Amino acid sequence: MKGILFGCAYYDEYMVYERLEKDMQMMNEAGMNTIRIAESTWSCHEPQDGVFDFSHVERVIEAADKAGISVIVGTPTYAIPPWLAAKHPEILADTGHGREKYGRRQNMDITSPAYLYHAERIIRKLMEASAKAPNVIGVQLDNETKHYGTCSANVQKMFLAHLKSEFGDVSRLNKAFGFNYWSNSVSSWEDVPDVTGSINASFVAEFNKFRRNLVTEFLSWQSQIVKGYLRDDQFVTHNFDYHWKGNSYGIQPDVNHKHAQKALTLVGCDIYHPSQDLLTGAEAAVCGAAAYGLKKRNYLVLETQAQGLTNWTPYPGQLRLQALSHLASGASGIMYWHWHSIHHSNETFWKGVLSHDLEPNETYWEASQIGKELESLSQLKDLKKASQVAILASNESLEGIERFPFPGGKLDYNDVFRWMHDSLYEMNIEADVIFPEDCEDLDKYKMILVPALCCAPDSLLDALGAYTSNGGFLVSSFKSGFFNEYMEARHEIMPLPHVFGIAYDAFTEPREVPLISPLLPEGAKASVWMEMLRPESAEVLVWYNHPSWGKYAAVTKEKRGNGSAAYIGCYMDKDCLKPLLESFLKDAGLWGEPQNAQFPIIIRNGIAQSGQAVHFYFNFSPDSAKQPYYHEDAVDLLAGKEYAKGGLLEFEPWGAFALLEKA
Amino acid sequence: MKGILFGCAYYDEYMVYERLEKDMQMMNEAGMNTIRIAESTWSCHEPQDGVFDFSHVERVIEAADKAGISVIVGTPTYAIPPWLAAKHPEILADTGHGREKYGRRQNMDITSPAYLYHAERIIRKLMEASAKAPNVIGVQLDNETKHYGTCSANVQKMFLAHLKSEFGDVSRLNKAFGFNYWSNSVSSWEDVPDVTGSINASFVAEFNKFRRNLVTEFLSWQSQIVKGYLRDDQFVTHNFDYHWKGNSYGIQPDVNHKHAQKALTLVGCDIYHPSQDLLTGAEAAVCGAAAYGLKKRNYLVLETQAQGLTNWTPYPGQLRLQALSHLASGASGIMYWHWHSIHHSNETFWKGVLSHDLEPNETYWEASQIGKELESLSQLKDLKKASQVAILASNESLEGIERFPFPGGKLDYNDVFRWMHDSLYEMNIEADVIFPEDCEDLDKYKMILVPALCCAPDSLLDALGAYTSNGGFLVSSFKSGFFNEYMEARHEIMPLPHVFGIAYDAFTEPREVPLISPLLPEGAKASVWMEMLRPESAEVLVWYNHPSWGKYAAVTKEKRGNGSAAYIGCYMDKDCLKPLLESFLKDAGLWGEPQNAQFPIIIRNGIAQSGQAVHFYFNFSPDSAKQPYYHEDAVDLLAGKEYAKGGLLEFEPWGAFALLEKA
Amino acid sequence: MKGILFGCAYYDEYMVYERLEKDMQMMNEAGMNTIRIAESTWSCHEPQDGVFDFSHVERVIEAADKAGISVIVGTPTYAIPPWLAAKHPEILADTGHGREKYGRRQNMDITSPAYLYHAERIIRKLMEASAKAPNVIGVQLDNETKHYGTCSANVQKMFLAHLKSEFGDVSRLNKAFGFNYWSNSVSSWEDVPDVTGSINASFVAEFNKFRRNLVTEFLSWQSQIVKGYLRDDQFVTHNFDYHWKGNSYGIQPDVNHKHAQKALTLVGCDIYHPSQDLLTGAEAAVCGAAAYGLKKRNYLVLETQAQGLTNWTPYPGQLRLQALSHLASGASGIMYWHWHSIHHSNETFWKGVLSHDLEPNETYWEASQIGKELESLSQLKDLKKASQVAILASNESLEGIERFPFPGGKLDYNDVFRWMHDSLYEMNIEADVIFPEDCEDLDKYKMILVPALCCAPDSLLDALGAYTSNGGFLVSSFKSGFFNEYMEARHEIMPLPHVFGIAYDAFTEPREVPLISPLLPEGAKASVWMEMLRPESAEVLVWYNHPSWGKYAAVTKEKRGNGSAAYIGCYMDKDCLKPLLESFLKDAGLWGEPQNAQFPIIIRNGIAQSGQAVHFYFNFSPDSAKQPYYHEDAVDLLAGKEYAKGGLLEFEPWGAFALLEKA
Repeated sequence: MKGILFGCAYYDEYMVYERLEKDMQMMNEAGMNTIRIAESTWSCHEPQDGVFDFSHVERVIEAADKAGISVIVGTPTYAIPPWLAAKHPEILADTGHGREKYGRRQNMDITSPAYLYHAERIIRKLMEASAKAPNVIGVQLDNETKHYGTCSANVQKMFLAHLKSEFGDVSRLNKAFGFNYWSNSVSSWEDVPDVTGSINASFVAEFNKFRRNLVTEFLSWQSQIVKGYLRDDQFVTHNFDYHWKGNSYGIQPDVNHKHAQKALTLVGCDIYHPSQDLLTGAEAAVCGAAAYGLKKRNYLVLETQAQGLTNWTPYPGQLRLQALSHLASGASGIMYWHWHSIHHSNETFWKGVLSHDLEPNETYWEASQIGKELESLSQLKDLKKASQVAILASNESLEGIERFPFPGGKLDYNDVFRWMHDSLYEMNIEADVIFPEDCEDLDKYKMILVPALCCAPDSLLDALGAYTSNGGFLVSSFKSGFFNEYMEARHEIMPLPHVFGIAYDAFTEPREVPLISPLLPEGAKASVWMEMLRPESAEVLVWYNHPSWGKYAAVTKEKRGNGSAAYIGCYMDKDCLKPLLESFLKDAGLWGEPQNAQFPIIIRNGIAQSGQAVHFYFNFSPDSAKQPYYHEDAVDLLAGKEYAKGGLLEFEPWGAFALLEKA
Repeated sequence: MKGILFGCAYYDEYMVYERLEKDMQMMNEAGMNTIRIAESTWSCHEPQDGVFDFSHVERVIEAADKAGISVIVGTPTYAIPPWLAAKHPEILADTGHGREKYGRRQNMDITSPAYLYHAERIIRKLMEASAKAPNVIGVQLDNETKHYGTCSANVQKMFLAHLKSEFGDVSRLNKAFGFNYWSNSVSSWEDVPDVTGSINASFVAEFNKFRRNLVTEFLSWQSQIVKGYLRDDQFVTHNFDYHWKGNSYGIQPDVNHKHAQKALTLVGCDIYHPSQDLLTGAEAAVCGAAAYGLKKRNYLVLETQAQGLTNWTPYPGQLRLQALSHLASGASGIMYWHWHSIHHSNETFWKGVLSHDLEPNETYWEASQIGKELESLSQLKDLKKASQVAILASNESLEGIERFPFPGGKLDYNDVFRWMHDSLYEMNIEADVIFPEDCEDLDKYKMILVPALCCAPDSLLDALGAYTSNGGFLVSSFKSGFFNEYMEARHEIMPLPHVFGIAYDAFTEPREVPLISPLLPEGAKASVWMEMLRPESAEVLVWYNHPSWGKYAAVTKEKRGNGSAAYIGCYMDKDCLKPLLESFLKDAGLWGEPQNAQFPIIIRNGIAQSGQAVHFYFNFSPDSAKQPYYHEDAVDLLAGKEYAKGGLLEFEPWGAFALLEKA
Repeated sequence: MKGILFGCAYYDEYMVYERLEKDMQMMNEAGMNTIRIAESTWSCHEPQDGVFDFSHVERVIEAADKAGISVIVGTPTYAIPPWLAAKHPEILADTGHGREKYGRRQNMDITSPAYLYHAERIIRKLMEASAKAPNVIGVQLDNETKHYGTCSANVQKMFLAHLKSEFGDVSRLNKAFGFNYWSNSVSSWEDVPDVTGSINASFVAEFNKFRRNLVTEFLSWQSQIVKGYLRDDQFVTHNFDYHWKGNSYGIQPDVNHKHAQKALTLVGCDIYHPSQDLLTGAEAAVCGAAAYGLKKRNYLVLETQAQGLTNWTPYPGQLRLQALSHLASGASGIMYWHWHSIHHSNETFWKGVLSHDLEPNETYWEASQIGKELESLSQLKDLKKASQVAILASNESLEGIERFPFPGGKLDYNDVFRWMHDSLYEMNIEADVIFPEDCEDLDKYKMILVPALCCAPDSLLDALGAYTSNGGFLVSSFKSGFFNEYMEARHEIMPLPHVFGIAYDAFTEPREVPLISPLLPEGAKASVWMEMLRPESAEVLVWYNHPSWGKYAAVTKEKRGNGSAAYIGCYMDKDCLKPLLESFLKDAGLWGEPQNAQFPIIIRNGIAQSGQAVHFYFNFSPDSAKQPYYHEDAVDLLAGKEYAKGGLLEFEPWGAFALLEKA
């Protein structure tokens, strides 16, 4: 595992005829060095209760070894075999709409004792059969674990115990959750009702937080088991996946990645993204930053698309550009899901490297080119990222927007998160993703952006306030600070008036309310949400243009010693947000020559293990382009050509440069 | 209770810190004189089975008394406490999709004996604790009661008993409902199937009528209990609510208000309406008329919005205009839902007078202005309305359109109802809302409009026919008279040929069929529904312009002695309906100088207790306006200025005049 | 049953007052000669368990006989009586979403023993009561039978037995269905899970095929029973209905008509279609061809609309044009659903010949004209159709597209089927509908079109290949041959490279990819689905115009000896498909003078019993039109006027000619 990991998921179990050696050879020829196996096929490994058969696992590890290919072994616990469901139907989760039926994966109650018993057994047997192999480099725990909506009786009992421990007595529970509303208050723990019928946002949010924690505990439990079998050089990973909107989109609602990552020694994730004309690289950047931020270290892209879904079939050059984008975000490895398109069942049209004909094809040939190039880029492995800007991600605030959506559900939390991130991305400002747990470590950033941080304890708000006192530049969107950690709306004047120098108590859904500011383009409008900001000490950057609300501010900026705190009180197009952020970035000294380039030219930076600076220049466009090179003299590791500062990069369509500054 | 009631719902139980005295003082300063309490918080009043605690009720009544504020006490029975659901899960309604879960309000079976037992006990205890207080002026029964979709076994048994009593033997049932269709006929009462699977419109409609009657019986039962505790000066009310389409919209499908009002001594209702640019006053008018029509007396607006939903945040001036609109429709009181925005649970973004910061704000200040003005308008309390036009509302016909929707569901009953009402409203023609039960009293109206009266017994059709013989002007929309009271399509030539002088047997969904008439604007078109009218004795006012259907009439008018009967055989834009109605109104002598003003200038009239005529002039527009005053010399009670007939009223944006004619 | 059957469904049971004799007289006067009775009214025939009452049946047969009207008796088994559901609730199908509720028709498990026992008894009793009557000409088995989504336990047990018999041991099952995917493989038959939760397309598809077979078996069982009571001159029929998309649209997903027809001696079907401006005759043609193709013989249209749904109310002339369209497609009879509009229940606004007023009306009068004309057309009864073109319909491929829909579900199988059929129809090319079972008999066609034949066994692909070798012209759409008969994606180079001379392995959802070809109109674009065809030996007719995919072909043509095989690799507008098909038809010598006429002028052809050629010329337009007559000298049987070849037909709006060539 010295170079950059490059490979794919491999399912010998799904193959329609014997091809193992041929596949290993084709991979080897394509420069692939790693496969991931076994995570979906429990019923093959244990065809009957207590009868084990690891022949697929063993022969694949062996064949891979012969071909010089490393293996990541996945525990197969996210898809139970039919006999287990038949024997223990209670394993299938009760989601509040009845018990799940057997068939699909990820429909079990991950707290079910019968499930845990059998899961532990198959994990141990699989580890015994595979962990010792020299080419097994690591283990993936389960697969895209979530809580699968379980609210079966035992889970609710565990939740009740959690509430008792959190609140001590019911009167505190009643008060914290506002249970007096609609006659929901309880006088004994026994009367706490089934959460699945509840309309109480605090209660439901706490239950969801509790369920996210079930995932943390589950992965930690698997990790303990697995670690007993591993050498020091073998890693424990998991493929975290993101909020799914037809592709990887943002913060995962059902898992707290920041908590769950403690079970791992190496973070992994799945990143799927739009393709063809819609390929922008934004998902590689934002999901990559979110993965990097978990341990503030490099991560594996354990799944990303080869040919993928029908409307993702890549244009020539895109597969390569995608791989380089992951590398530029700090990925230590890129693995396709999956090697061969599946001939049966359900994901038949989620295509792998090979099509159903199992022959070399355009995608295979481009992967082969990538395989070769990655070898030449091996010094860029474990690239350090060193952003001066961070975006704060909050599972609790995501939950808050779920409970109390913006009008018409037109925006969710991740839309606001991506709105801020992508605006930066398009201006070639790289941003770390940080979490509430990181709040002791804010001062290293020159700017922190806070999207829709609606749920936050006092401590977090205080930390953000202190950050500005210490000279940081805080940029908050609307709605921030509205609720405390139990989804109780704050009754102090909001939001953080001492920080932002404003107050407000009214808001509405604007019907095309124009915005007035010299910073904004003609035709700028508030949409979806607007707060009527009353500036106190803050400077007003943008006003609403409205017969009734013209006296209110839309965007303000407060100077606090060396620090600043900007508040964006309404949603607007990204084309309006960008010039606003530009003005803040200039204030903060974060605007430089590279900002002359803008999307579709994307510049990404890092520090190689050698300490040398690295700059990726990408062209997310079907057109050729010429672009000045803004950094110190460097060599393009891809083409081997040297570029002096100010030199001209000539892009192919979907082209890329990987420039290593001279030592 | 001498002046106009003005106040809000108040929830001490929901408050996040002690503020009772401060709140009472703030209300008092705002001219608020009444609060409504206790209707949502059974679990506070009875935290355990048989353990009662009315401390919130008692301290609020006391504090209100000190501040000179009256109290309406609501029985808390629409939201049961958790312990009750836990003990008697059968209380939760079985809706045909399984039993309801505990959590939200209004999900119980209101016929459940266990529910009724506990409801009666808490009502009696609450009355004992509150009714004697001098400042308790009345009691609200339950809250927005409906049948909540119950079709649990006992309800279906009661329904079967009803059918037996209605039809005597099954052969009459089979015939009345057409049960032979699709093999549904029964030969014994035992075989009458579960109504929840039925496709028989008559059966389902009768069940829904039966369920509406459950509400009537429930409120009557509560009324009997409550009245035992009340002084003569204390009223019994209930907040009827309307068909909800994002706001109060029309006739309530699940309650027959005309029947249910018998339980009350004073009608109350909830009226919520669009706001900001969409504020028209139409809801205050139509829902107000529907409330006034129940007892042909004044009513309370027990709930209306202060800040309300996110997209309702009022423009300056709108809160005041709204209050005056209710007054002009005959409201004796206006109460906001609610005093303070709630910090928890579910309706957190349905804001009250105060925002979550609980500080004075724009809405509070405008409410304070209203409070002061209402004092000066106290002689307008219990304004008598004396319309010469009425619109007939029919729960049974609403049900009929639900069972057999217009093509594509593009219109429902209330759409047709509002289409007629709002056309009148915009032309400043006030209309009473009347009900089938009022049909002995039709002759006092010069014109009666009948929207989509698809279900009607012979007696009602006869009464409408007699009305025209007696000189009235009857205006019917399409579809009227189609079904009898059991949803049997009439097999006589339709509709009422002897009244309207027409026949038809065919209808269709028009695809943009132009209408020809000198009365209509260019481009007039039939849409959604058209009947091919064959004029017999009637005059044709509008023809269809169509290659196949040009021989059919769209709108006809029949003279019958002194009376007239117009039939509008198709749906069209309101801009087409208005000139048609204008021609009818002119025929009927109902068109006068005030009709020179049209929406957004709205004129509303009444007779003060003193016998003096009152005229409200409203400007539902963000623009200033000048408007001649059309009535006899009067004084504007708001500004204290006198206006002679023909004088010029100068409107502020969203401005209003309340003009009392000189004695 | 000598002439063309003409009549309607008649429900004495539903009539609101005694009208039997009057109705028979009105029918007789309208030239109606046949009614269909009894199929919906089991509860009338057997009001209690074992108590029979056929008075409605007997009196209607008798009254019909007096009026010279024939009767088709329907077995009433598709709608069970309430007492049967009450006694045997297990009869109601368990659909995987719980057991069906009593109320609607067609919700039973057609394999339930209790159902079959009672069904057999009522069938036998009904046959005893009716079959001997001289004017009973045939029996309809059940009504629009389907499997009603049953997946109750006994059905799944039968399915398991089917799997055992099909696969012998579980390892073959695992392999055929790819059960290893997501850990679904089984090691014993007992572990085969409930199909209702499955995500395995092969498993679900096989279950659906099995369920279609339940219908075949059920009709065969009824047929056996009924035949015991029939004279030789009495037919056994059934009204097959089509995939419903607001009207009859295409191949029925839930029944394999080709298999099920074996139970019948005369095929019947229901054909409902859009009307008014949307009447094109395409449904009469395509559904008619699908019915004709079942036995390659004439069929009855047992149901079609009179006035029908609200937006179907026919224009003058349309009812007649519709009847002639059915005749021209090979129908031996046309029967309306239904005589009188129903006054109750559910289909009240699906109107019959008579409206609810039960008086003669426009529709009745036009039906009377048709009745008279059909008498003069009696020599056109049982017209032979002799198309040189066929379209292959495949239930299995329909299922395939259901399991793996085109992107966004924008096209289903029948959309592709209709796309091909309707393009031919509009160019006046008549096409037979053929089925996989017909593949021994392909060579009689000059051209065979294959829409989206995604699921096909090798034998079918081989037969299609052989057809081209034998000189046929095969035209395939995209996706053909993708799966084998068990929904396993083929891993050979696809599709049929030896036949089409192409290969492809990639496809995508095109975002407006232009098509380049001299054959296509300006602006031609691929949409929904495109395959990147790599021509090997084939000629490329159409290329994609795309920066990345310009090297791939969209449409190709391969010459194979005398035969040809064209492949259309993408979806495009019908206006693009038509010129492509035109070029193929010209190649195949199928383009002649009649192709100068195009929709809305439609020409249909057949051979009368006498051997004389017959040509129908139709005008599907509200405008008059003049049209040359292209065939040999003939007489228009409708107007009695003679036309020489080249003579001018002068069309009324929605007009028609029925031209019999001179003997």
